[in-house]
Amino acid sequence: MTTIEELQAKIAELEAKLSAQNATARNKIDSMSAEVVDSNPYSRLMALKRMGIVDNYENIRLYTCAVVGVGGVGSVTAEMLTRCGIGKLILFDYDKVELANMNRLFFQPHQSGMSKVEAAAQTLRNINPDVEIVTYNYNITTTDNFQHFMDTISTGNLTNGPVDLVLSCVDNFEARYTINTACNELNIKWFESGVAENAVSGHIQFIVPGETACFACAPPLIVASNIDEKTLKRDGVCAASLPTTMGIVAGFLVQNTLKYLLQFGEVTHYLGYSALNDFFPTMRMKPNPNCEDRYCRKRQEEYAAKPKPVKEENVAKTEEKPLHEENEWGISLVDESATPEEVPKSVAEGLSYAYEEGPKVLRDEANPQDDVNLDELMAQMKSM
Amino acid sequence: MTTIEELQAKIAELEAKLSAQNATARNKIDSMSAEVVDSNPYSRLMALKRMGIVDNYENIRLYTCAVVGVGGVGSVTAEMLTRCGIGKLILFDYDKVELANMNRLFFQPHQSGMSKVEAAAQTLRNINPDVEIVTYNYNITTTDNFQHFMDTISTGNLTNGPVDLVLSCVDNFEARYTINTACNELNIKWFESGVAENAVSGHIQFIVPGETACFACAPPLIVASNIDEKTLKRDGVCAASLPTTMGIVAGFLVQNTLKYLLQFGEVTHYLGYSALNDFFPTMRMKPNPNCEDRYCRKRQEEYAAKPKPVKEENVAKTEEKPLHEENEWGISLVDESATPEEVPKSVAEGLSYAYEEGPKVLRDEANPQDDVNLDELMAQMKSM
Repeated sequence: MTTIEELQAKIAELEAKLSAQNATARNKIDSMSAEVVDSNPYSRLMALKRMGIVDNYENIRLYTCAVVGVGGVGSVTAEMLTRCGIGKLILFDYDKVELANMNRLFFQPHQSGMSKVEAAAQTLRNINPDVEIVTYNYNITTTDNFQHFMDTISTGNLTNGPVDLVLSCVDNFEARYTINTACNELNIKWFESGVAENAVSGHIQFIVPGETACFACAPPLIVASNIDEKTLKRDGVCAASLPTTMGIVAGFLVQNTLKYLLQFGEVTHYLGYSALNDFFPTMRMKPNPNCEDRYCRKRQEEYAAKPKPVKEENVAKTEEKPLHEENEWGISLVDESATPEEVPKSVAEGLSYAYEEGPKVLRDEANPQDDVNLDELMAQMKSM
Repeated sequence: MTTIEELQAKIAELEAKLSAQNATARNKIDSMSAEVVDSNPYSRLMALKRMGIVDNYENIRLYTCAVVGVGGVGSVTAEMLTRCGIGKLILFDYDKVELANMNRLFFQPHQSGMSKVEAAAQTLRNINPDVEIVTYNYNITTTDNFQHFMDTISTGNLTNGPVDLVLSCVDNFEARYTINTACNELNIKWFESGVAENAVSGHIQFIVPGETACFACAPPLIVASNIDEKTLKRDGVCAASLPTTMGIVAGFLVQNTLKYLLQFGEVTHYLGYSALNDFFPTMRMKPNPNCEDRYCRKRQEEYAAKPKPVKEENVAKTEEKPLHEENEWGISLVDESATPEEVPKSVAEGLSYAYEEGPKVLRDEANPQDDVNLDELMAQMKSM
């Protein structure tokens, strides 16, 4: 015999379980603290200040990024920025989560059938309730949506101004072209990203309207190959993808976003990744003076008229000169990959680099001082 | 007035909700299919076969990896391998999830207080129930646990043989040294990984006992600097970390694991990542004939006695010669970073590379054929 009281107790117990599972696991935090306690989700980020890497990490709360495309690259991009505590994220996508997406990070099987932006927002708010997340479940390339997209990115930041960056994580030419058009007109900086159909290469590219080549300045090969992109996805043909390549490309994208927003290190203009042989080409492309995008040409004129600082920030180390002086497209490349130079790294007192610096000591055989250090090291180690 | 029937109906409803939330979202799948339907979680992985990248992707189900350390790098490593559909994962860690870990991917705030291996296993089984996941919540460096660790990795694969790879994702010297000792004795190949205390650099290293330098062959600087590692974590000093750097290092680790297990591309022996300037040094280190680890020396003798194939697989492109012919440690480096060479990529018919190949066409100014292609491209694009 069960009594009403027993049944009511059972109901209370079940409701408590359900509410525990659905509760946001932590409350909002007013300001970022560097306090080293297990309960502080920002201690390891604020430590970047003590390590001498970032001057004002807490400024990340002032910034807004738009992420266009919340698939294999975009979802991880949004998660990384959320965990870094960015101020606001605006997500655009019109696709649904499917089991076929489970070979990439982020979405989980129980989210199948949900819209990607809704599923992403749910997970991201749970991970970090301090980040403001706004979602738009539409295709930015249609005429109506394009106007709304333009309005959103030009007024979407935390003080109703333009977003600080647009991060393109889309998988097709048309959407990239649309973002390019919008960012040239609105003079908004953006990052392009992409992963190859065979899943083993990818890239990111930083586009500063008027200053670096835009997406229309250097048209991609797919246009020339004259194949309708939609045919690629028909007839049981499906692109390969890997969580590794997409996670790495998202990592490059967010790392360079952090470097740009928080002003540390050098923002790389083009960074490629070839997985088969771990090759990472970098380069820098000047804009095409004859670019077909009139806003690109307008931004180029504005940039040319602007007084330049004597020593430009983030400038390429080799002298910039066009590789194809006579080429009709006016595209110039500076290949930076041949001259990688180490940025001096500083660490806090009492800390030293561990294993990852080991091989470097042995690398420079031309420097006799290194040999001395090596001997000293050996002596020290033997005496332990 | 509520009746017993109404209360029982309410209980049934709540129980259904709870069970829906806790249900594994999909059933096990007997064998991997390449069928292109939204409900197939393996379609984009099996597409690697059609793309000409991997011969037998489904073989991934035969392999077992041990992941030691399930923190910022190890958890993402385990998630990537789980989503790739690896046969079995064995996870080792003795730490608990804390809110202070939320600046890295994978764990979520509601998992705070759980052991890392338990929390990871729960999430991973939900993502892919086809992967067998075994966890050990202990520190591998104590005497008793070390023996259990040795037993586990030497008999833990799907047919009670040794695991195919050990992936080291630990954050301290002692644990790395322990893994090194075990793998040398058991002759098991392993990958070392690490991220710097300042969060802006990292590396992976492939260690083949007797064939490449082991962790004891090239002792890391931290030993020489004579600071007890434990002091690094005391007194409010906490290492910085970023989800970007850790996600990228995990990506490199799993990508090279896939290349090794599924035999495609080239496995990189040492790959570094310097986030501040996007620099990626690669190198190859020969073992030290005087290595203090006697099993390392034994494996070197076995390797020296083994007949070598005329053309070795995955060999460095530059001729291998020791940089320090006379050095007491016998360590030799071959810096591969200066001569990156592109592996030819093949794609399925009907597919072509998109944007990421664009700049490459323009890169080689010495080749007149490229100029011809560029002209052709321009003509084609103008006619569209």
